[in-house]
Amino acid sequence: MQEARESRVKVRWYREAPLVRTPWDGVAVEQEVPIMPQRVLSSELPAHVGETVLLRGWVHRRRSLKSVSFLIVRDRAGLAQVVMPEPVETPEESAVAVVGTVVANPAAPAGVEVVKPTVDALAAAETPPFELFRPDLAAGLSTRLDAAPLAFRHPGTRTALETAAAATRGFRTALEKSGFTEIFTPKLVATATESGANVFPVDYFGRTAYLAQSPQFYKQLMVGVFERVFEVGPVFRAEPHDTGRHLAQYTSLDAELGFIEDHRDVMAVVREAIAGMVEAAAPGLDVPIDIPDIHFPDALRVAGARPDEPDLSPADERALGEWARREHGSDFLFVTGYPMVKRPFYTHPDPADARWSNSFDLLFRGVELVTGGQRLHRHGDYLAALAARGQPVEPYRSYVDAFRYGIPPHGGFAIGLERFVARLLGLANVREATAFPRDRTRLEP
Amino acid sequence: MQEARESRVKVRWYREAPLVRTPWDGVAVEQEVPIMPQRVLSSELPAHVGETVLLRGWVHRRRSLKSVSFLIVRDRAGLAQVVMPEPVETPEESAVAVVGTVVANPAAPAGVEVVKPTVDALAAAETPPFELFRPDLAAGLSTRLDAAPLAFRHPGTRTALETAAAATRGFRTALEKSGFTEIFTPKLVATATESGANVFPVDYFGRTAYLAQSPQFYKQLMVGVFERVFEVGPVFRAEPHDTGRHLAQYTSLDAELGFIEDHRDVMAVVREAIAGMVEAAAPGLDVPIDIPDIHFPDALRVAGARPDEPDLSPADERALGEWARREHGSDFLFVTGYPMVKRPFYTHPDPADARWSNSFDLLFRGVELVTGGQRLHRHGDYLAALAARGQPVEPYRSYVDAFRYGIPPHGGFAIGLERFVARLLGLANVREATAFPRDRTRLEP
Repeated sequence: MQEARESRVKVRWYREAPLVRTPWDGVAVEQEVPIMPQRVLSSELPAHVGETVLLRGWVHRRRSLKSVSFLIVRDRAGLAQVVMPEPVETPEESAVAVVGTVVANPAAPAGVEVVKPTVDALAAAETPPFELFRPDLAAGLSTRLDAAPLAFRHPGTRTALETAAAATRGFRTALEKSGFTEIFTPKLVATATESGANVFPVDYFGRTAYLAQSPQFYKQLMVGVFERVFEVGPVFRAEPHDTGRHLAQYTSLDAELGFIEDHRDVMAVVREAIAGMVEAAAPGLDVPIDIPDIHFPDALRVAGARPDEPDLSPADERALGEWARREHGSDFLFVTGYPMVKRPFYTHPDPADARWSNSFDLLFRGVELVTGGQRLHRHGDYLAALAARGQPVEPYRSYVDAFRYGIPPHGGFAIGLERFVARLLGLANVREATAFPRDRTRLEP
Repeated sequence: MQEARESRVKVRWYREAPLVRTPWDGVAVEQEVPIMPQRVLSSELPAHVGETVLLRGWVHRRRSLKSVSFLIVRDRAGLAQVVMPEPVETPEESAVAVVGTVVANPAAPAGVEVVKPTVDALAAAETPPFELFRPDLAAGLSTRLDAAPLAFRHPGTRTALETAAAATRGFRTALEKSGFTEIFTPKLVATATESGANVFPVDYFGRTAYLAQSPQFYKQLMVGVFERVFEVGPVFRAEPHDTGRHLAQYTSLDAELGFIEDHRDVMAVVREAIAGMVEAAAPGLDVPIDIPDIHFPDALRVAGARPDEPDLSPADERALGEWARREHGSDFLFVTGYPMVKRPFYTHPDPADARWSNSFDLLFRGVELVTGGQRLHRHGDYLAALAARGQPVEPYRSYVDAFRYGIPPHGGFAIGLERFVARLLGLANVREATAFPRDRTRLEP
């Protein structure tokens, strides 16, 4: 590795992407030829058989047999097997650079391995609190969360974060394709949006502000500007419950669109967004072009609940999930028309029967995944809705006033990213779907 | 419009995207044929000459001449001229649906107009506090911000938000292409990240948390998982200054990458990110493949500053911007090697001379646009750096401890989205580059 080290002084041999660059004085010169190989990712090794390559990553595992030792290198793309002449001293999870020759070996992972290696330790690791090379991470949730940056190195654990990133990309791509504009709204607000409870107070230059529970009001107002808007951002709930379904901060995927007839136009966009997310994050899963739907009173009947129940219980939702699979062959089911009494004041009632709302939930395998609906859009309707619930207008003044200026019929929806990921992957606890969860007791790391 | 109104009962004629759907009971039937035209956007009118179309949008302006009146409809794509047989009563900014016939007229905007219209008011507007149809919005910043959802309807004002959305898309696209993974990090933290001042305290279930000033620590830790990460999200600074450059909440575009040699690898990624942002948001602007750079002491010399100055003043930066344009024909200039004393404790020193750091700023037309650099990556170096600054380790324990486990050499950068947009568009105040700014006095709307 002596030669490699010296070479660094002269040329930038470790660069990942080819790059032509002039020196600092800005005068163009001929580029020096790298004498060290370009880095390849573990997944790219099969295309480099017979070549000398540079691998970079972490010591995933060391294994010593009688006559030979193996070093398994983990990088962002996967694992690579390096054949060592003698046992490896660099401990697991150290960051390393390995230069060696790629050879075909049907017994090795992906049919290739690296031989005649030179290993350069970039950053040594102490012994981790759990063994990351095991197929399953033998550590309880609390231990894992305490050492989150380490636990997520485990390929199985990491999947949840990769799924979150992919699903978010799919969400944005689907909405941008449909003419939606991304917006960025305040997380510091003067008034609680959804309800007075469960908000975090903030000392805001000497007065009290709150952390936004959702971008609800702002996305509605921006319909007046862009017609169709979306936002991906953190929302905050001071959840008193310590369950596997709640986080004090989660990522909300929000969308809102104007010029709709009713909530069914919103449902059509939900379908596109979910299809985009699934295509990016879980391509094997079928999202029907026509997601079946059922009206709330019918849903109660199918679930075997009392006809005067104002909401669906988790058991009801499970029964509906089974029904959708059985009757419609679908993992997804829209439940529409939830009773107005169970929905927030900005919800638009069903014009045909004001007991029901123009709202919906999307169930996935019997659990709620998306909530949305049509909103009120006339200034007078907002005043009436607040009055009917005995709520003062004043805290909502700047929001309600905006409806004086021609906000078209509109609606929207929100998807909790961590919940989506947890349900897609079958994770028991939503804390497993985010790198650094926040709850009643957890504020670190 | 009577016929159109009736038709709504039977068919969903207003749908934007063609959609095949089964009725609620899930049984497939032949789709009914819409008897009303599909909506077209104003920008699509030239392709529909001779056809009857549905426009939707807002009354941008009404104009009555002797024998004819005009209704200018504004939608998310632009403006459309509708020829009315009599003066329009629907006030400006009302949301409307217009059905009419597209005819060619070289005198009309984009060479087309809509005739024989039927106008349906979807939501009436009161008289706005300023006239949105004027080429320039004749309202002071404070008035505009008070009525932000309305002011941003003005096409000129709206550009800033469109630019923000496009730049963000370009940032993500460029980084995803280079193997970066999106992360979502906590905005509620136990310790101030950048410094103890300027943080917002939060009442977090009875104890004190803080709003994150940056995702700095988290993105560094996630290098150990994904090698290359980015985040787009809000950050919070309790800025005591009431200037045109500061916001209490802004959108930070953050990236961090591992396995670097030094800060110059980070600068190469900055160039890719900026090029992606500019390509998406301001395609006419040239981002050199090789952005020129200058070392800090040389920058002082070029700017005519005293050689012992620890930082560049705004005037120095302006002088450097002019120098870069004159000497290198570039709007962009990297200044590298800022003195260690002016950089945060996690900054990596220049191995050749520890007075200077492996850090940089990117100047755009003489103002700072991006800050970044190489970070410390060894556990011992963190302990030493904190000790050297007389800072206790305890508040940073969960961060510093993560460096025990093989974090490779790494670095990253951050771009303030609103500042980027303001500088790209030449806006005097960063508050014009965000829909709902937050500052010392402003918490609404």
